[in-house]
Amino acid sequence: MIKREIKHLDYLEQSELEKIHQAALTVLEKNGVEFHSREARAILQKNGAKVEGEKVFFPPQVVMEMVGKAPSEFTLHARNSEKSVTIGGNCTVHAPGYGSPYVMDYVNNTRRNATYDDYIAFTKLAGNSKHIDVVGGVLVEPNDLADQIRHGKMFQAAVKHTDKCLMGSAMGGKKAMESIEMAAIVFGGIDNVKNNPALISLINTNSPLQFDPRMLDALMVYARHSQPVIIAALAMTGTTSPVTLAGSLVQQCAEILSGIVFAQMVNPGTPVVFGSASSIVDLRSGNLAIGSPESVKMFSVIAQLARFYDVPSRGGGSLTDAIIHDSQSGFESMMVLMNSVLCGTNFMLHSVGLLENYMTMSYEKFIADDEMLGMVKSFTERFPVSDEYLAIEAMLRVGSGGNFIADEHTYNHMKDMRIPQISSRQSFAGATDFNETPQRAHEYSKMILREYQTPELDEKVEAELEKYISALG
Amino acid sequence: MIKREIKHLDYLEQSELEKIHQAALTVLEKNGVEFHSREARAILQKNGAKVEGEKVFFPPQVVMEMVGKAPSEFTLHARNSEKSVTIGGNCTVHAPGYGSPYVMDYVNNTRRNATYDDYIAFTKLAGNSKHIDVVGGVLVEPNDLADQIRHGKMFQAAVKHTDKCLMGSAMGGKKAMESIEMAAIVFGGIDNVKNNPALISLINTNSPLQFDPRMLDALMVYARHSQPVIIAALAMTGTTSPVTLAGSLVQQCAEILSGIVFAQMVNPGTPVVFGSASSIVDLRSGNLAIGSPESVKMFSVIAQLARFYDVPSRGGGSLTDAIIHDSQSGFESMMVLMNSVLCGTNFMLHSVGLLENYMTMSYEKFIADDEMLGMVKSFTERFPVSDEYLAIEAMLRVGSGGNFIADEHTYNHMKDMRIPQISSRQSFAGATDFNETPQRAHEYSKMILREYQTPELDEKVEAELEKYISALG
Repeated sequence: MIKREIKHLDYLEQSELEKIHQAALTVLEKNGVEFHSREARAILQKNGAKVEGEKVFFPPQVVMEMVGKAPSEFTLHARNSEKSVTIGGNCTVHAPGYGSPYVMDYVNNTRRNATYDDYIAFTKLAGNSKHIDVVGGVLVEPNDLADQIRHGKMFQAAVKHTDKCLMGSAMGGKKAMESIEMAAIVFGGIDNVKNNPALISLINTNSPLQFDPRMLDALMVYARHSQPVIIAALAMTGTTSPVTLAGSLVQQCAEILSGIVFAQMVNPGTPVVFGSASSIVDLRSGNLAIGSPESVKMFSVIAQLARFYDVPSRGGGSLTDAIIHDSQSGFESMMVLMNSVLCGTNFMLHSVGLLENYMTMSYEKFIADDEMLGMVKSFTERFPVSDEYLAIEAMLRVGSGGNFIADEHTYNHMKDMRIPQISSRQSFAGATDFNETPQRAHEYSKMILREYQTPELDEKVEAELEKYISALG
Repeated sequence: MIKREIKHLDYLEQSELEKIHQAALTVLEKNGVEFHSREARAILQKNGAKVEGEKVFFPPQVVMEMVGKAPSEFTLHARNSEKSVTIGGNCTVHAPGYGSPYVMDYVNNTRRNATYDDYIAFTKLAGNSKHIDVVGGVLVEPNDLADQIRHGKMFQAAVKHTDKCLMGSAMGGKKAMESIEMAAIVFGGIDNVKNNPALISLINTNSPLQFDPRMLDALMVYARHSQPVIIAALAMTGTTSPVTLAGSLVQQCAEILSGIVFAQMVNPGTPVVFGSASSIVDLRSGNLAIGSPESVKMFSVIAQLARFYDVPSRGGGSLTDAIIHDSQSGFESMMVLMNSVLCGTNFMLHSVGLLENYMTMSYEKFIADDEMLGMVKSFTERFPVSDEYLAIEAMLRVGSGGNFIADEHTYNHMKDMRIPQISSRQSFAGATDFNETPQRAHEYSKMILREYQTPELDEKVEAELEKYISALG
């Protein structure tokens, strides 16, 4: 978890932000949002929204009243309580890539379908990472598992191989409920889960301005059990949202607000996250361009809007459009990651591993992105400015033209420095390793997977979970 | 030139910044700075500094009074007045890599000594760049030229192949004066140069707490001719400065202030830049680690200190410790570049091209870094939030579940988007080019060099310059 010690960067002026807010309220009142669930619409109507067919219109005062019920931050509990995290405030909580159907095969330099073995391996890399806080969910898509057991097997892998925070399935009400029942096995009963939220789940809008029944059913199950939900738009400018950034942000804001309002109507006080995975589209090719400065601007404003509504935000990631792990993948990923953290994003999916926008997970990029997380974390942590660190005495001792290498001040503080995991600090002349970063990352990932120590898990819990998951199939 | 439209990021609290300032004043008063020039010391003594041997001690009130004479921003004039730039305020002015003795040979994957042909080729790439503002100086070291003509031939290449702003030689008083005389040929006489500064030069301190005679002589020549000087520390933590960031910043601040104070004593109102190329040292290997978060923290505070003294700042660059143009070189360079711009750096040497800290220039990384400059520029430029861009009408037209692709609002604004120069936005499935970024950059650089159009230069000026430079040898 990154605890940012430098002030966040507000991208827009307050007056501009309020224009986006007002425009979103207008869209919610005049166009409304389609909720493709009769049950959801009944709840919305009962709580002051106007329903016509599938469409739900939101009076501004209903929106603001309901958003006000959402907590400004909350704790997500891990089975190892030392790994529980705060979502909100100055923190950025990190989860790996999410939902990729493909994995990059580094050795053969091609991509292939992701499997459950990949899922387990990435879970171990996430377990090993000093910077990843949340596992589970669709870390990669285990294409070789039957649909009705996937969420169970993914949950099992996450619990078995790590003791970090967990994500739940958003694939409909049934799988959401099963996720909660599995969490109940791990966390000592369903009341414990309710009182100490243990599953965070990703509820996507269906842009423009819709929610599908599967997501709504999952949302209702999680809200009724007080489990946090990320309400996230994945709008694509010029296709599923207006082509302008301001317009796309208005639409995203309207969609996310409607989901947050609905969650509060289902159960006031449900922890929510104001989220986005939206991107511009390169209209020459029709492809997403998530590694673009325009996408980062949108993430920055999403974080700022979330502060305006006093709820946590989600956005960013180590995002790139490169299909190969090269310098483009490096500079795009750093741009999105660094700025999303500086702009105050609280929850970050896709923090490590992705290539080719959201399509492909890479073991090697997972390791390189984990290095970047360490760098970003270091940048956001201030350095001490006390007399001891100001070092006036040392400068008077060493004097003009001297060398600090042998001074006691150097000896006392030389260990403060961050040591990179895989990055090179060789000189060309003295180099012993001319491998590129992906090769070093490849070897590092193999080493981690070879040596990974699984944290302890109560045998009874493991057996009960196994029994529950077997019954799903 | 990047004109940042979002607010700069202040890294330190004001109280912490003032601690560094106070400590620097203490060091200037108690340890002083060695000025290895009798002429310089005489000027310092005459203006209120205390001189003992080579050492110069600065009373705090002298420091503050003299720093107050430096302008908070100034214009650097190009021979094409459309390419003149403002140094200070919200602007970041970019110059390419500076001083590398080596060039990376991409085809043979090794490094070699830089030559004058490289110098000319990099000058053309800089001339072609939409983001590079300043050329000349030691863009790369032309190792194949005799020392006494290098500065002349470098100046000639910069003037002949571009019409952008220029750097002067800081290799002693003679070469500084010759730089000014060459500028006088291009800019219509020495009075024009004096009244419209046309050469910016890099005066490095000799850490810890010294100035060598060559730099001091150059500084005096430029100051007497009202040409801007960058006073820059290149401190290396744990060796030529304290190992702590705070301590290293105190020392840098003291060194830079003493140079600025001296410049104001030579000629009050001389434009100066408060600069740093300092870095942490990886004490395991003794190598610089300029692509580290610690180095960026120092650049950020240097920019903040410069604001405190109300003078422009220099720092940052597309800096990396990687010896190969790979993902590490991408993510390190983006981290340093983006944060240095966000933190308000006004002048940036090393904006494009460097590998292996400051040692090696790469044609391919030059092109990739130029792409990054476009991204950073875009991120710092706000987007419009007027009614037309908020797009409420478009959303009401398209409605829930619709598609914006055919809407007139999309058609009207789709051209606003930034198009990358070399970055890939292909999908893996539809890819026609599986080359990595360095290969695309290689081909792009070859194309630029093939097709480069030299801007017009008055024949008489060209002939006079040729004559002057021939006489140097």
